[in-house]
Amino acid sequence: MKRTFVERAGDMIGKEIRLVGWVFRYRALAKTVFIVLRDCTGTVQIVASPEQVASLGIKLDDVVDIRGRVRAEPRSKSGFEIDLMEAIITNASSHDLPFNSSSDISQVGIEVVLDHRPLSIRTDSVQEIFQVQASILEGFRSYLRKNRFTEIVTSKIVASGTEGGTNLFQIKYFERTAYLAQSPQFYKEHGVAAFERVFETAHVYRAEPHATSRHLTEYYSLDLEMGFIDGPEDVMTLERNLLSEIFEDLNKRFGDSIKKRSGDFLPDMTKTPTWEFAECMERLKKSFGRTDLVDDLDPQGERQLCEIAQKEFGNPSVFVIGFPLNARPFYTHPRGDKGAAQSFDLLFRGLEITTGGQRLHTRAALEQALRAKGMDPKAFEGHLRMFDLGMPPHGGLAIGLERLTGQVLGLTNVREATMYPRDRNRVEP
Amino acid sequence: MKRTFVERAGDMIGKEIRLVGWVFRYRALAKTVFIVLRDCTGTVQIVASPEQVASLGIKLDDVVDIRGRVRAEPRSKSGFEIDLMEAIITNASSHDLPFNSSSDISQVGIEVVLDHRPLSIRTDSVQEIFQVQASILEGFRSYLRKNRFTEIVTSKIVASGTEGGTNLFQIKYFERTAYLAQSPQFYKEHGVAAFERVFETAHVYRAEPHATSRHLTEYYSLDLEMGFIDGPEDVMTLERNLLSEIFEDLNKRFGDSIKKRSGDFLPDMTKTPTWEFAECMERLKKSFGRTDLVDDLDPQGERQLCEIAQKEFGNPSVFVIGFPLNARPFYTHPRGDKGAAQSFDLLFRGLEITTGGQRLHTRAALEQALRAKGMDPKAFEGHLRMFDLGMPPHGGLAIGLERLTGQVLGLTNVREATMYPRDRNRVEP
Repeated sequence: MKRTFVERAGDMIGKEIRLVGWVFRYRALAKTVFIVLRDCTGTVQIVASPEQVASLGIKLDDVVDIRGRVRAEPRSKSGFEIDLMEAIITNASSHDLPFNSSSDISQVGIEVVLDHRPLSIRTDSVQEIFQVQASILEGFRSYLRKNRFTEIVTSKIVASGTEGGTNLFQIKYFERTAYLAQSPQFYKEHGVAAFERVFETAHVYRAEPHATSRHLTEYYSLDLEMGFIDGPEDVMTLERNLLSEIFEDLNKRFGDSIKKRSGDFLPDMTKTPTWEFAECMERLKKSFGRTDLVDDLDPQGERQLCEIAQKEFGNPSVFVIGFPLNARPFYTHPRGDKGAAQSFDLLFRGLEITTGGQRLHTRAALEQALRAKGMDPKAFEGHLRMFDLGMPPHGGLAIGLERLTGQVLGLTNVREATMYPRDRNRVEP
Repeated sequence: MKRTFVERAGDMIGKEIRLVGWVFRYRALAKTVFIVLRDCTGTVQIVASPEQVASLGIKLDDVVDIRGRVRAEPRSKSGFEIDLMEAIITNASSHDLPFNSSSDISQVGIEVVLDHRPLSIRTDSVQEIFQVQASILEGFRSYLRKNRFTEIVTSKIVASGTEGGTNLFQIKYFERTAYLAQSPQFYKEHGVAAFERVFETAHVYRAEPHATSRHLTEYYSLDLEMGFIDGPEDVMTLERNLLSEIFEDLNKRFGDSIKKRSGDFLPDMTKTPTWEFAECMERLKKSFGRTDLVDDLDPQGERQLCEIAQKEFGNPSVFVIGFPLNARPFYTHPRGDKGAAQSFDLLFRGLEITTGGQRLHTRAALEQALRAKGMDPKAFEGHLRMFDLGMPPHGGLAIGLERLTGQVLGLTNVREATMYPRDRNRVEP
């Protein structure tokens, strides 16, 4: 007999059906046993007599294969229940699990959660994290496709780093050494020369020695790059619209839960203010007495700026533009002639979730910028050559998927939004 | 002035607009110069007088920024042309390019093509390869989402190989050695325990020392895994429907070109026959006199089976099922008790593009299978533990994106369908 998805069972009142799934709840009364079965489409209540299940020893998280008859039941939320006819335990869960799919996962340590990842995902609260993440991924790609971006797939095994070579993981590549890509930056710029507008969703790697709640050695980067821009504002406008569309969809599908977990629905990002870096320094000084920041923000500064934005605009997010050029990668386009860069960060709910900007687009400017940083243009010849092919003015951005997921749901550690996090101490499971 | 996309220019007859893009064609007559400009939405013809462009030295693949007036032109295919008002070369292409975007790329060696990837992609024939690839990616994900699969993101840095440890790339991971994942096999099985149905689209890595036209050291794998199957036939049925939907879309969007390049439109995969491995041996013996194959097919055998299928069914594709179990990974489910495996390959137009099958789903069976292969279950404890959490019967498959793209378009080398291919000799660009 072919299985019926739980979500279709209600269409089959009076009929005998086969259901397969996990035991999600189990309640045994004197005369009746209630089993809530879960599959990838939802949950359904099955009603049995104690005699029917006595010999089976059914327990939570067992894999079961059930035949039953669908009965209309006005008192049930779904409007029906299943009267059990036959149940088989296809594969029992262990008796020694540290938690189960009905547990309050906030009471379980993150290490235990990660060591039993699939079981944690069977809980509503963790499953939702990864459903939100999958929705972000889908939303990112679909918005960009609609806006004429082409998806590209670029290599993660590279001959050298994009920014000069620190924090790179080495690979033994046959007779030579290669590296794991820190960013698809060069490839997506090449992609602009090819397609004008490109995006890539893929892992990037940083040999980040510090295990903080914000850093992973392997994270998933939502990258885009676009040609023929008039300035970084074009990229920021695109991101406002992109995130607003994603957030609108998330509010629709997960809004109540997002509000409960993070304190509020997701904001309209088209209303996010843009502040110059110098203006941010002023604001931080005025509101928080800070005078210690020089060429970048720190985590506290990011939180404080979002606090100010929340107070002034009712929206805890800020685009910061015009970072000091000397602290930015060589390919960064200057903003005016006072040492500022056409680089921006997007801060959201107190955390940087995007870095973006306009890039240099002529070989001459890139060579000069390399030399100014004490680097040899010859070492970048493979990259520079692409600027001979007809490279338009361009810019782009990268969003950290785990960070964005975490900020959407108000998680405190980026690991909670990573199925299998990697840091200095963890390469398993 | 804001740029107008080429595809919108026709809506602005009589108006002045700004267009940005690349010079795709350039033809100078005595009294008129024709410039075909290309952006990410298409091409448009611009008409100028020789005087207007004399001082510019416009050439193919230059990046240009143009103001012009749109004029209805019934003789043009698009129904309009642009009368040039002003042109600026934003960034000139080099005078020393080995080919340009109008070249016949089949006359350019693959090494030169790869060294100038963006320029090659500006040619119609190469651009189409990656448009087809992006469509396959989109089609794979959208079909699976509709069918209740959840997208997952799993780590590519792993502590050991999924199949015992050959052909792994080593990573220097702080104080220890880690490896690049050869497959998300274990993670997607864990994903079944979590979500029931999962997919992942990501790179996988094989330290493949041989540089053949079919192999890469880094390729992009379209992976799926599904729970509660009754056998591998459920997975094959899903793949038939999945590929048929993708192929239908490709025939619609790229059909004429696919037919021209590969000899035919893409077939209806719901009609693909399934042959037992033993039956394949019989057919190869009968049709081609082959008696040399033992526990697997070889490239020639794959071509020959597709030839037979083409003759008998008018469809050059075959599912081969029931490979000898001893040549398959330890987690493979047996098919009956005569030493066959619930493993299948999908051959398409002469090449294996998918491997899939049903997996063992109990800890006891997995431990026994490991021992039978001389491996120690203790070394797989992190994986085996997931089978204590309630693992349903399950199976899945992996499609090589570059191979599928290549077979769809009739390409002869998988590198042509890889933006930045990696093999023993190539880690750049």
